[in-house]
Amino acid sequence: MTATAGVVALRFEADALHAIDQTELPWREHQLVLRGAGEVAEAIRRLAIRGAPLIGVAAAYGVALELARQPNSLDRACEILRAARPTAVNLAGAVDRVQAAVRAKPADPAATALEEAARIHAEEEAASAAIAAHGAELLAGVTHILTHCNTGALAAPGRGTALAVIAELADRGGLVQAIATETRPLLQGARLTVYELARLGIPHELVVDSAAPGLIATGAVDAVIVGCDRVAANGDVANKVGTYGLALAARAAGIPFVVAGPTSTIDFATPTGADIVIEERDPGEVRRIPVQVSGPDPDEVRRAADQRITLEATPCRNPAFDVTPAHLISALVTERGAVRSPDAASLAALSA
Amino acid sequence: MTATAGVVALRFEADALHAIDQTELPWREHQLVLRGAGEVAEAIRRLAIRGAPLIGVAAAYGVALELARQPNSLDRACEILRAARPTAVNLAGAVDRVQAAVRAKPADPAATALEEAARIHAEEEAASAAIAAHGAELLAGVTHILTHCNTGALAAPGRGTALAVIAELADRGGLVQAIATETRPLLQGARLTVYELARLGIPHELVVDSAAPGLIATGAVDAVIVGCDRVAANGDVANKVGTYGLALAARAAGIPFVVAGPTSTIDFATPTGADIVIEERDPGEVRRIPVQVSGPDPDEVRRAADQRITLEATPCRNPAFDVTPAHLISALVTERGAVRSPDAASLAALSA
Repeated sequence: MTATAGVVALRFEADALHAIDQTELPWREHQLVLRGAGEVAEAIRRLAIRGAPLIGVAAAYGVALELARQPNSLDRACEILRAARPTAVNLAGAVDRVQAAVRAKPADPAATALEEAARIHAEEEAASAAIAAHGAELLAGVTHILTHCNTGALAAPGRGTALAVIAELADRGGLVQAIATETRPLLQGARLTVYELARLGIPHELVVDSAAPGLIATGAVDAVIVGCDRVAANGDVANKVGTYGLALAARAAGIPFVVAGPTSTIDFATPTGADIVIEERDPGEVRRIPVQVSGPDPDEVRRAADQRITLEATPCRNPAFDVTPAHLISALVTERGAVRSPDAASLAALSA
Repeated sequence: MTATAGVVALRFEADALHAIDQTELPWREHQLVLRGAGEVAEAIRRLAIRGAPLIGVAAAYGVALELARQPNSLDRACEILRAARPTAVNLAGAVDRVQAAVRAKPADPAATALEEAARIHAEEEAASAAIAAHGAELLAGVTHILTHCNTGALAAPGRGTALAVIAELADRGGLVQAIATETRPLLQGARLTVYELARLGIPHELVVDSAAPGLIATGAVDAVIVGCDRVAANGDVANKVGTYGLALAARAAGIPFVVAGPTSTIDFATPTGADIVIEERDPGEVRRIPVQVSGPDPDEVRRAADQRITLEATPCRNPAFDVTPAHLISALVTERGAVRSPDAASLAALSA
């Protein structure tokens, strides 16, 4: 079985950033046309553009777009974009790079910024392809694999990170099935991952998040692969809430638990997972759920809208991430190769 | 902090069974007034009355109600009620008891049936109170506790099982907060447990299911308590999907993982968890979610309806339960007492 061509989440064309509005998937594939830092930041903030590497690239283009409109707006544009998702290290990193490039070559700020953004974009695409290759080698022989959240083309340039590995396993033959978790509260699995898997032609099943540990225990999958929002210097991983529970279940079942992400996700300024501040998101995301709603206009039939699932007065806690300790991670797959049993020494060596 | 009076799911009064229609919770508390076996069976079939012990009691009253209208209808009434949920062991058991009581004392069938139904009801209430007392003793000192699914007054007469322990901890003082998981796919936590906790006056927070392991790891709770659908002879527990992941997280954090349920839930005919066949429910439950919908009639504003969260073509897997191995269970709390580290010998001794 070979994965077919998938989704393209972002492209820069005709002086604008064209991005699929991920909040409307899977109901319709609507392209946003973004022309300034504020618009890009807003799209990132409301998760129309999401996924750590993808928001980094989008933010880099956002700086370039703003400079094309206002050549003296570098610092303000960078500030607006950094504030869109404070936990995202890729976003800050990409914005820093564009800022440094423009400062180093201030003659034509917009052109310099666009060049740097395109370079980051190309690097991320190459990283995705390299991650896919290293991951597929590591997991050769795996026929059933489980993944969490969305880590495909809708999360990172190219075919993504963890989902790129799954697509590569399918390309190389032998992959029988992928299991996707729905990923409450925002349902990135139910809305985005199954959409991408269908577009890639990969047989798959969707499960509620809490079903995954039990399925792992019964031998339904040979491996678990997830992405990462941040990797601490010691190998601890912050990723979408629910990741830690999958790691515990994989360890208990004796199957590989693999984390895939570019080396840019490794944050040597964060010694351990305990030093990562977990972003608490709006409790309203727990009280509500994005469902398909119909409108009078045929174009609106497939839009998603949040609907209430509990009493509005119910207090909710909504951590965006959890931390998986390094000792539960079988391997970290990066564009530079796979690091088995990642720790401070092996990560430092990887990035040296 | 003392728990206030909670929800009363069922009461027999003025020649009728009054039952909260659980399909309309938490949007409105609508009392059904049921006057015959057919009406009770229909309420059970459409999950207006749910929870194994609760449907047993309701069915017993259903036989009595039918006999009050038609004294010669014993066998037909029993048949109608048994067919309402064919796999529910408590339901069949309760109906059998009423049938046997009436056959043994046929002079006034309606009075005999009502007496037996009230006896079953009282026994279940006493079991709930005993479970609550034993559990609260075991967990004395716990200030923050996490629970899954719904195990309160809406699932069992009295104050339920695991949720009765939480209510008892609150009554005894010292409980600061309960955390409830939403419990996809049918949201028993988000719709029923938080409703009960609010009615009991117990401070609480709702979280998505996959957030629980990470919260447990960060020390947010001192204990986890859940109910059980079936306990195997060796202490392995089948319970609502998601239970196993909570047990793994509790073990990793070194906090108690407690299972509460009546001894009638222990099935000595099932040697181990591996012998429990996991019920696969309708995949449509994964594709859809019960949300609040508005209607033109003000009375209809608070009804719940299933809405789509993913593409209708998405293949889904929907295991209703998972199995938690006995070695992860700190204690099984029953009406006869708490068994620490349950195993074949201790469970046999408990039921001797």
